[in-house]
Amino acid sequence: MPVFEETADARRDLRILPSRALPLPRLSPQISTTDNEREVVVIGAGPSGLFLTLLLARYGITGSSLLCLDSKPGTLKAGQADGLQPRTLEVFQSLGIGSEIIAEGCHMEEVAFWNPAADGKSGIERTSFVPDVNVPARFPFEVTIHQGRIERILQENLNLYAPESTIRRSHHFVDYTVDAVNHPEYPVLVSYEHELEDGTRIPGSVRTKYLVGGDGAHSKVRKAMGLSLEGETSDHIWGVCDFVADTDFPDIRNRSAVHSEAGSIMVIPREQIATGEYLTRLYVQVPGDVDAKADRTTTPDDEKKNSSKKKRAEVTLDYIFQQANAVFAPYKIKIREGTAPDWYAAYQIGQRMTPKFSSRTPDGVDRVFIVGDACHTHSPKAGQGMNVSMMDSYNLSWKLAHSILGLTPRAITSSADPILETFELERVDTARQLIEFDAKFSHMFSGKIGSGDSSTAGLTHDEFLKVFRDGSGFTSGCGLEYKPSELVRTTNDSGNLITSGGDPLYGALTTGRRVLNVELKRYADNTTRQLHDELPSHGRYRILVLTSTDLLNPAGISQAALQACVKMVRSHPAGTIDLVVLHPIKERFEWTQIPADVKRLAEMRTYGLSKREDAYDVYGISKEEGAIAIVRPDGYVGVLCRLSAPKVAGTYLKDCLVTV
Amino acid sequence: MPVFEETADARRDLRILPSRALPLPRLSPQISTTDNEREVVVIGAGPSGLFLTLLLARYGITGSSLLCLDSKPGTLKAGQADGLQPRTLEVFQSLGIGSEIIAEGCHMEEVAFWNPAADGKSGIERTSFVPDVNVPARFPFEVTIHQGRIERILQENLNLYAPESTIRRSHHFVDYTVDAVNHPEYPVLVSYEHELEDGTRIPGSVRTKYLVGGDGAHSKVRKAMGLSLEGETSDHIWGVCDFVADTDFPDIRNRSAVHSEAGSIMVIPREQIATGEYLTRLYVQVPGDVDAKADRTTTPDDEKKNSSKKKRAEVTLDYIFQQANAVFAPYKIKIREGTAPDWYAAYQIGQRMTPKFSSRTPDGVDRVFIVGDACHTHSPKAGQGMNVSMMDSYNLSWKLAHSILGLTPRAITSSADPILETFELERVDTARQLIEFDAKFSHMFSGKIGSGDSSTAGLTHDEFLKVFRDGSGFTSGCGLEYKPSELVRTTNDSGNLITSGGDPLYGALTTGRRVLNVELKRYADNTTRQLHDELPSHGRYRILVLTSTDLLNPAGISQAALQACVKMVRSHPAGTIDLVVLHPIKERFEWTQIPADVKRLAEMRTYGLSKREDAYDVYGISKEEGAIAIVRPDGYVGVLCRLSAPKVAGTYLKDCLVTV
Repeated sequence: MPVFEETADARRDLRILPSRALPLPRLSPQISTTDNEREVVVIGAGPSGLFLTLLLARYGITGSSLLCLDSKPGTLKAGQADGLQPRTLEVFQSLGIGSEIIAEGCHMEEVAFWNPAADGKSGIERTSFVPDVNVPARFPFEVTIHQGRIERILQENLNLYAPESTIRRSHHFVDYTVDAVNHPEYPVLVSYEHELEDGTRIPGSVRTKYLVGGDGAHSKVRKAMGLSLEGETSDHIWGVCDFVADTDFPDIRNRSAVHSEAGSIMVIPREQIATGEYLTRLYVQVPGDVDAKADRTTTPDDEKKNSSKKKRAEVTLDYIFQQANAVFAPYKIKIREGTAPDWYAAYQIGQRMTPKFSSRTPDGVDRVFIVGDACHTHSPKAGQGMNVSMMDSYNLSWKLAHSILGLTPRAITSSADPILETFELERVDTARQLIEFDAKFSHMFSGKIGSGDSSTAGLTHDEFLKVFRDGSGFTSGCGLEYKPSELVRTTNDSGNLITSGGDPLYGALTTGRRVLNVELKRYADNTTRQLHDELPSHGRYRILVLTSTDLLNPAGISQAALQACVKMVRSHPAGTIDLVVLHPIKERFEWTQIPADVKRLAEMRTYGLSKREDAYDVYGISKEEGAIAIVRPDGYVGVLCRLSAPKVAGTYLKDCLVTV
Repeated sequence: MPVFEETADARRDLRILPSRALPLPRLSPQISTTDNEREVVVIGAGPSGLFLTLLLARYGITGSSLLCLDSKPGTLKAGQADGLQPRTLEVFQSLGIGSEIIAEGCHMEEVAFWNPAADGKSGIERTSFVPDVNVPARFPFEVTIHQGRIERILQENLNLYAPESTIRRSHHFVDYTVDAVNHPEYPVLVSYEHELEDGTRIPGSVRTKYLVGGDGAHSKVRKAMGLSLEGETSDHIWGVCDFVADTDFPDIRNRSAVHSEAGSIMVIPREQIATGEYLTRLYVQVPGDVDAKADRTTTPDDEKKNSSKKKRAEVTLDYIFQQANAVFAPYKIKIREGTAPDWYAAYQIGQRMTPKFSSRTPDGVDRVFIVGDACHTHSPKAGQGMNVSMMDSYNLSWKLAHSILGLTPRAITSSADPILETFELERVDTARQLIEFDAKFSHMFSGKIGSGDSSTAGLTHDEFLKVFRDGSGFTSGCGLEYKPSELVRTTNDSGNLITSGGDPLYGALTTGRRVLNVELKRYADNTTRQLHDELPSHGRYRILVLTSTDLLNPAGISQAALQACVKMVRSHPAGTIDLVVLHPIKERFEWTQIPADVKRLAEMRTYGLSKREDAYDVYGISKEEGAIAIVRPDGYVGVLCRLSAPKVAGTYLKDCLVTV
């Protein structure tokens, strides 16, 4: 038997803990905050507020710098949302929090379409199965799982990065005021009320640099900013129910869009629960219109409101199942004997958003922001709600962290932060697309397909399918393309910016779009890697160098580009840029054949092609020419330039990130 | 905006928790145990004892039925093991505890072989890269990660299934006695000492039905059973060190076997640590022999022992790196500046095991068992230690749980449990293979390759590679084949047992071997599934029906077999058998075209072929003929028979599992 004489270092014990992301470096002075001063105060601990709080903590804004106030007493809320889109899954995975959701959530890979039987028989028949996600994605499916479970996972991860006191429960946001003259460091005074168990409310306040409202559709932060949701509430009322189904409808475990003479239903399969049974969510259209169309921000109409409310109240559990059976005929559906439904509700479709997501204080700085439902609300049909909301936070968080940590270059004449300003630009645009798509999609869904129903003007099943398929880039989150800005450079720079070959929707490397995952073979250890796992969401920029076939030529453009990129990394603060190197070389070469700094900076981030996938082909980049891409901390391409023009990449970085 | 009127069930809140496996049904009387009576007492909370405790708790032996005593005061130990084999990863994944290890451990996909430079130059050169794992596996690589981290993951999962008091720390096992006459229910009296912080030891005792020793190489349970480790300690001494390397050796991130004129080294790359750096483990051979060859169980020789101990003590950190640099020349290696080594040790290679792993008490029942290092110890070279130990527990746990819960049929004339007895049969055989392989492998490793070194008799590099490759079935854990027994039926039964086509090592369905993972498409929801995820380790048998191309023929053998298998499931206690159905049909069919009971029993366990993989081809089963396999709770095939002979499967199940 092996006999040991051993010596161990105490630090070895740390190796047993779960991995944590390294915080970003802080270049701004570490201000010793009192208990009443924070760098960021977040209002609301639902998906958008909690996700924002988590991301800030991971980036290094934590401890006494961060506070989240939530009006609810408990850690978890009853949630209506249940769908995670492919892009959201990618982001969760990039934070190391995707595995439970992907392993245990319900996957939707295909959608079944059902329509009135064509041959004059009564009832419905299946028209087709189509893929649920029509664009390439690391996880080519949607996942459904209880919203509270997602919040629990976020909360557990937050506990690794921030003290428990970061979230204060039973704290109601009241208002905020700004005084940049007397309090230049912490100009925003947030007032709140702490509700005790007996209902007493104790007023309190906290000063902050930045205030973010993730406080939902009825956001008080939004109201304090002087903003409101604008848009329409439609005339369509739907019932929704989560339950264990007993049915002979064949596609109950598929996402199914059912249109019959009696109305419309959307079937959303859900996860397995502790009993071993599987949940189903049904969206059931309530036939007939409610005369409630109104722009509420300008013409509130209490009478119409009341009529809608009354009609919603009529949507009982019995009603939902009575209507479901009418639509499903000849199939039958009921709640499985011995089980109780989890949740049911009635809601009215509408699409509303605010025109602004931020507010500038008198010192010329954007200090107040809103994210999630506070910015935009819409129907649940396309499964977007929680996703777009959390992606608002994903976009804002790193920009805010960079600004606070002193990583963003500022113009000398202004205290504004051009990088932080891109949050509003990018997310208002996304919200607008969401609202437009949802209006079209949910309206179409509430109409009758292939019928003379005037509201859809006789939309055929094929036209419906086209809207569904064309919308996949947006609904999956994977087709999102941010518009040109300080962070997205598309203006031609002496011909040195490039456009890759291939379809941006199918993964070609495209400025403004997220880098698609590819499989690679790491040079140093010959292991198969997924590029997304190598680009975790830790708040750093990446210089992604796709070297060309001349890599091993010491006088070639690849080595010159690598040398220039190494210099670029070193001209910015340590720990703010990762160098990532791809190469197309098939034969074995040695570290000594390429610049030594590549091993120093990117030993574990240098990759060749995998057996299964050719990254250059996927990205539409020629192996003879190569390319340099700067990838933003959120995974979107900021600039794409010739391998021979690394200066273009350098200029981009200098505009986004301070130099040393 | 959507306006909600909602109603929620309180049970909905449970949906946010992590998933838990359903416990097995209990048919034996629920005995109200006092605090001093347990159904199982486990000694030791290292990998084998902790894993056993976790598995028993998951199967339903928990609460006041289970106790684990550990001599150490803390929850985590300093551990030497760091490697997880592909089969262990499969088992962890089947328990839902694999993701952190797979995501954050270091993967080894290839091994670099280095030998003395061939062209007469001094120093070493790379001879070849070969795959680390040469057999198909769900995870085709080994993973290295700190043993304490694995224990932490096991402990966290145990906390979901068992109260914290299940593990009592600072409790030293002393001895056990048996009195089946006066205490027929809890015949084993375990005496222990509870060590207080001041060192005082308070004696105590607990009665149990079963006692399991997972208390390591110096096991006191083994000693109390009257058993000892038998075998040899070799003359080879090795040093080992975990550290952050600074080196120009090109393959430092690969598993590398280095043979030079100066000696041998094994490089084991390790995981990334919190600083962002990567650990390396080096095994460095200490040149020269120690004259310590002796069978210690029969001829202890204190002089030789002392000589070995002295030599091991000479293996300092400086010595390890001095020797490493001699072997690596012309490359250099040192500990990275600013870092301290995690751990270093010297050990002596040996292979020892006990001939028995269980002990029968006077009532004719096997009541005392040992697992892990208590049964077998060997060199760490092939990375087997922790793996074989935990697989001992994996094999024992479900058999013990079935026995305790009254699920195993007993002969009327005997209180012995033939299923439980297979533990010793199967694991002694495995341990013997381990000892034999390790002796060959580690001995070979300590010799010089291609040299005249007498101990390896001039083994060439190619011969070395052959041993490495041929050993992959064993070292990966994926080639394990349990011998015929009550649980592994290979005796021909009127020609109804079958042997699949293809190579068992490459995944052909083979009695005694584990079912290889395949990708399938689930019928009910059109999702892509990995079969291993559908066969979680929850202690149940599976009837795996590979239906044939006549599936849709109501008079064909497939439907007859399905009907028979449904009957089989129903003739055993509810919740002890899962029906799993595969079909080779390409065109779409409806549930109404196959027996209705299939949907009732296996709605979410009925699968067609995936686009990427043909399960019938992988398993070597003809689509025209089909097959029925009974899969044991640990994933090994118990019996494989013709689709036309479901009775053979039924007989197997009746012998293994009680009927109702």
